[in-house]
Amino acid sequence: MKPKVGVIMGSTSDWPTMQKACDVLAELQIPHEAKVVSAHRTPDEMFRYAETAEERGIEVIVAGAGGAAHLPGMVASKTVLPVIGVPIKTSALNGMDSLLSIVQMPGGVPVATVAIGDAGAVNAGLLAAEMLGIQDKALRERLAKRREQIRSRVLKESELK
Amino acid sequence: MKPKVGVIMGSTSDWPTMQKACDVLAELQIPHEAKVVSAHRTPDEMFRYAETAEERGIEVIVAGAGGAAHLPGMVASKTVLPVIGVPIKTSALNGMDSLLSIVQMPGGVPVATVAIGDAGAVNAGLLAAEMLGIQDKALRERLAKRREQIRSRVLKESELK
Amino acid sequence: MKPKVGVIMGSTSDWPTMQKACDVLAELQIPHEAKVVSAHRTPDEMFRYAETAEERGIEVIVAGAGGAAHLPGMVASKTVLPVIGVPIKTSALNGMDSLLSIVQMPGGVPVATVAIGDAGAVNAGLLAAEMLGIQDKALRERLAKRREQIRSRVLKESELK
Amino acid sequence: MKPKVGVIMGSTSDWPTMQKACDVLAELQIPHEAKVVSAHRTPDEMFRYAETAEERGIEVIVAGAGGAAHLPGMVASKTVLPVIGVPIKTSALNGMDSLLSIVQMPGGVPVATVAIGDAGAVNAGLLAAEMLGIQDKALRERLAKRREQIRSRVLKESELK
Amino acid sequence: MKPKVGVIMGSTSDWPTMQKACDVLAELQIPHEAKVVSAHRTPDEMFRYAETAEERGIEVIVAGAGGAAHLPGMVASKTVLPVIGVPIKTSALNGMDSLLSIVQMPGGVPVATVAIGDAGAVNAGLLAAEMLGIQDKALRERLAKRREQIRSRVLKESELK
Amino acid sequence: MKPKVGVIMGSTSDWPTMQKACDVLAELQIPHEAKVVSAHRTPDEMFRYAETAEERGIEVIVAGAGGAAHLPGMVASKTVLPVIGVPIKTSALNGMDSLLSIVQMPGGVPVATVAIGDAGAVNAGLLAAEMLGIQDKALRERLAKRREQIRSRVLKESELK
Amino acid sequence: MKPKVGVIMGSTSDWPTMQKACDVLAELQIPHEAKVVSAHRTPDEMFRYAETAEERGIEVIVAGAGGAAHLPGMVASKTVLPVIGVPIKTSALNGMDSLLSIVQMPGGVPVATVAIGDAGAVNAGLLAAEMLGIQDKALRERLAKRREQIRSRVLKESELK
Amino acid sequence: MKPKVGVIMGSTSDWPTMQKACDVLAELQIPHEAKVVSAHRTPDEMFRYAETAEERGIEVIVAGAGGAAHLPGMVASKTVLPVIGVPIKTSALNGMDSLLSIVQMPGGVPVATVAIGDAGAVNAGLLAAEMLGIQDKALRERLAKRREQIRSRVLKESELK
Repeated sequence: MKPKVGVIMGSTSDWPTMQKACDVLAELQIPHEAKVVSAHRTPDEMFRYAETAEERGIEVIVAGAGGAAHLPGMVASKTVLPVIGVPIKTSALNGMDSLLSIVQMPGGVPVATVAIGDAGAVNAGLLAAEMLGIQDKALRERLAKRREQIRSRVLKESELK
Repeated sequence: MKPKVGVIMGSTSDWPTMQKACDVLAELQIPHEAKVVSAHRTPDEMFRYAETAEERGIEVIVAGAGGAAHLPGMVASKTVLPVIGVPIKTSALNGMDSLLSIVQMPGGVPVATVAIGDAGAVNAGLLAAEMLGIQDKALRERLAKRREQIRSRVLKESELK
Repeated sequence: MKPKVGVIMGSTSDWPTMQKACDVLAELQIPHEAKVVSAHRTPDEMFRYAETAEERGIEVIVAGAGGAAHLPGMVASKTVLPVIGVPIKTSALNGMDSLLSIVQMPGGVPVATVAIGDAGAVNAGLLAAEMLGIQDKALRERLAKRREQIRSRVLKESELK
Repeated sequence: MKPKVGVIMGSTSDWPTMQKACDVLAELQIPHEAKVVSAHRTPDEMFRYAETAEERGIEVIVAGAGGAAHLPGMVASKTVLPVIGVPIKTSALNGMDSLLSIVQMPGGVPVATVAIGDAGAVNAGLLAAEMLGIQDKALRERLAKRREQIRSRVLKESELK
Repeated sequence: MKPKVGVIMGSTSDWPTMQKACDVLAELQIPHEAKVVSAHRTPDEMFRYAETAEERGIEVIVAGAGGAAHLPGMVASKTVLPVIGVPIKTSALNGMDSLLSIVQMPGGVPVATVAIGDAGAVNAGLLAAEMLGIQDKALRERLAKRREQIRSRVLKESELK
Repeated sequence: MKPKVGVIMGSTSDWPTMQKACDVLAELQIPHEAKVVSAHRTPDEMFRYAETAEERGIEVIVAGAGGAAHLPGMVASKTVLPVIGVPIKTSALNGMDSLLSIVQMPGGVPVATVAIGDAGAVNAGLLAAEMLGIQDKALRERLAKRREQIRSRVLKESELK
Repeated sequence: MKPKVGVIMGSTSDWPTMQKACDVLAELQIPHEAKVVSAHRTPDEMFRYAETAEERGIEVIVAGAGGAAHLPGMVASKTVLPVIGVPIKTSALNGMDSLLSIVQMPGGVPVATVAIGDAGAVNAGLLAAEMLGIQDKALRERLAKRREQIRSRVLKESELK
Repeated sequence: MKPKVGVIMGSTSDWPTMQKACDVLAELQIPHEAKVVSAHRTPDEMFRYAETAEERGIEVIVAGAGGAAHLPGMVASKTVLPVIGVPIKTSALNGMDSLLSIVQMPGGVPVATVAIGDAGAVNAGLLAAEMLGIQDKALRERLAKRREQIRSRVLKESELK
């Protein structure tokens, strides 16, 4: 099935985090692809990815990057598809550099930024699903059901004492 | 026309910032509404807003808040519509508190966070449009045209010396 | 015995920290309960908890949460019982996100915030006791005695060289 | 009438902020006093204030301080009355220094910390009232009514567009 | 004369800062050009600028940008000419976002980062001159003379009391 | 021999760090004492320590503390002996809280603050020695000799390649 | 009279802050000098200043600097006189850069760091006095009297309500 | 062969990081030297190093330092050769102190700052090569080839799913 969500990241070392976005997409039955596309090491391929995403049927792009994290913003500058940015945790500054590099975009080119690290990657998958769900009632229901299951699980374990 | 985007904010003092989101939505011909819905001062109304948004035809929610900015995340906890969070600049911590309170959501409930302040509000409007544009080719073209106009303007003024 | 202090937290993973609040309450013979109540995963149960706390005889609420830590502030928005917020240490930002999300409440809805992590949880228990001690001389004396014991212990080990 | 809440601050320059705590206490008909008691310039008077507060009938202490803000924590070390700390906004670090100096207390001596600046002072007054309200149903009702009035005001101004 | 240093910036609003780099270059008789080249609003032109700089005789690129400041790093990804990055001061985060977005480049693509704001722009001009001075003794002497003049000026005004 | 430098700290857990100050003092043959004196757990003993230090022959006080680190500033408020503050590294905020709590003293009561952690403790010992060295030529020479030895050691190991 | 305290600063723009250190020294009748000595613009003069200070009769050095504030640490590396560092408030980072550049000295070369800005400059003057006071009982008494006067002033204005 | 790049660092403990700069220089066949030159422990040697570098044929200096990292800026104050600063990661503040101490240089004396830690050291080597490459076409080609190899490697591993 043709992928609807393109999950990209700056480096293979981001994959353990970004895989969590893919897991959510798989769980929600959303066709997707995952690639390393580096803003700094493969800039032309990055631009080509962004330029051709729409015609290839991609509807949402999820981009993870760390440090001077330029991938999400640069991809966003080349497409009007929604781009979700995942700040990868970094060794010196714990991802605060990634977060600010992704979220502080100038007016005109938005990046939908989520939390630093694994929780952010999970939420990137869910956010992509919510965007696709705007026109897909069945997906919206799968999302609602997922919420309900989590709610049940919390309620079951809620008594501590 | 029935609003498709709900723009909400924690306080009337957030309106000068959040109005920039509405201006973008108006420019792109997207029907929308704007309301003060306070997480802390009108919590029940906030929950009702989130619960009824989908049935009222709202497809994307844009929520601005400052300080301990709980509005975007709490609304997101009550709907599977995509929620965009705008961190309002604050007097003591310049919006760093707003940003962290909005973006650091736990896995399960995403908020699409944009930049602190006015640029963020503009981008919240654009991001909402991009989400709606997934299924609306005409809107996507309006977005692409807007980009092209900004590009032209930059190019015209680009020679400084 | 009916609990006077309600200790709640956003996730079972907060329990090792929040247990320290319960230990202090137990030590001071204050009846209490401990539950997971998640702002984002069980928002309705959270509101119900806050709404019914007073009538169930709860006199102080202690709420621990991490990251975009909305639990203490949202509970505080639904009750006029005093709410104590414990910022849980987080993996990326070490609890600075939790702290700002809890302490930077807007005027009108206070949260009594304590230190990040274990020391904060201990102090949340003590602070709850101090609040109950306003009208309970015996409890105040137990608190004073606890202080005195700690003082003695410090004095005993104070000579290092 | 004998004051129940002691509002103290490190310097007369903190008064414009701390006055907001007193305004709330006055509005809620809670007898209180306001004094400058400086941790660094009048340390002995500070200790005496803390030591004698309980016997003078004080039930809650609100302490505001800025920079290396030691007043709330030092007062807390000398009494088992609940102490609320208000971080005053500072010129260089905007109150982040005040906040960390107040909130990061070691286990054993809690300070109930509120937001930096004016919002924090308002909330310190309300938090003191909530503590006193544990045993004073009428006060709790005045607090609930105040909340209700604020809610009404927000709802009246909520439609922006 | 053909420009040797290309001074580019993300927006005309960066010109008052970046002009200081040009002033230094003019003072040191280094031919240069100044243009707005926006990473996010004119990404293709940015890539073309970087790709053609070397063949046009540019030997050093100075790039100023603010917020999610991607211009210096993206230009650096497309050329092996040295790229100097100037973090522009921003309204919410004072340029800390610009600094981290520019300096925290991954191994493989360096950006020579200078201080936030005006001092950084001055130093970007000087750093470009120092780089060109490696093979240009006369320029190195002009730089040394400039240092000597500043030294003299400081010494003249050095007695304060 | 009567101690000239009083080394105090808020907790026995600070001893591994503060011992480094004592090691330096021992190495420089400066008589000193080391004690736990807690601002929050033994406030009266702390005041007594500060009040009696001068008459006991103490000439410089070195005080280490972590978190809401009130010990150095409070001791300084009770004596006109020079007080050196060592910010202890903390688990959540890495000692940034300790640093700001110690260094941001209001005008009128100085604390001579050194680096966070072990390097700071070493330097606290050296700084105390430098203060005593003002009137003690032999000590000043021991300090100069220590510097010279360190310089020699660096020079010996300086060639890496 | 020969100066005992050398007050130096990196730039004439630091004088309005550093003057406050001189005012305190004058008030306490401590002979002193004030000079601009720039680490970066007059490095040789800085070294000469540090090298000759002791033989010229200087007993304490107070050094103010902003941004990458190297003056206090570099002077300290060239003398075993005690060096007090005053972090000057900066336009972008409010003096946080100055503070970290001054206080985070490696083990071996201490700088006695005080608060950012004016309060720090006042305290640098007082700290220098306290150091000189170790062997000068009369000065110590003037310091104690100054404290007492401030205490009286606070007590006089202490009743606010 | 006479070294063209001087790699210096404040301490032998910086060698594991700084070695990465040397590895890159070796890989690109650029003659270089590596030494410990400490701003604080061998200040005179540091000045001599900076003063004589140019006459010894050094064309670029790479200087790594941590904490109050004065080495790059002080060397830069003594030469008009380009100086590249590498902020070493530190134990308490993760290198944020090193970064600010290096990058926030005043106008007049530039330091080309790179990322904190290993990535920064790699990039320091590359940046030095880029500077030398301005007049050395063969080196520029080696740099371009290195980029191309990295690009190929990324492309080969780019498909994740």
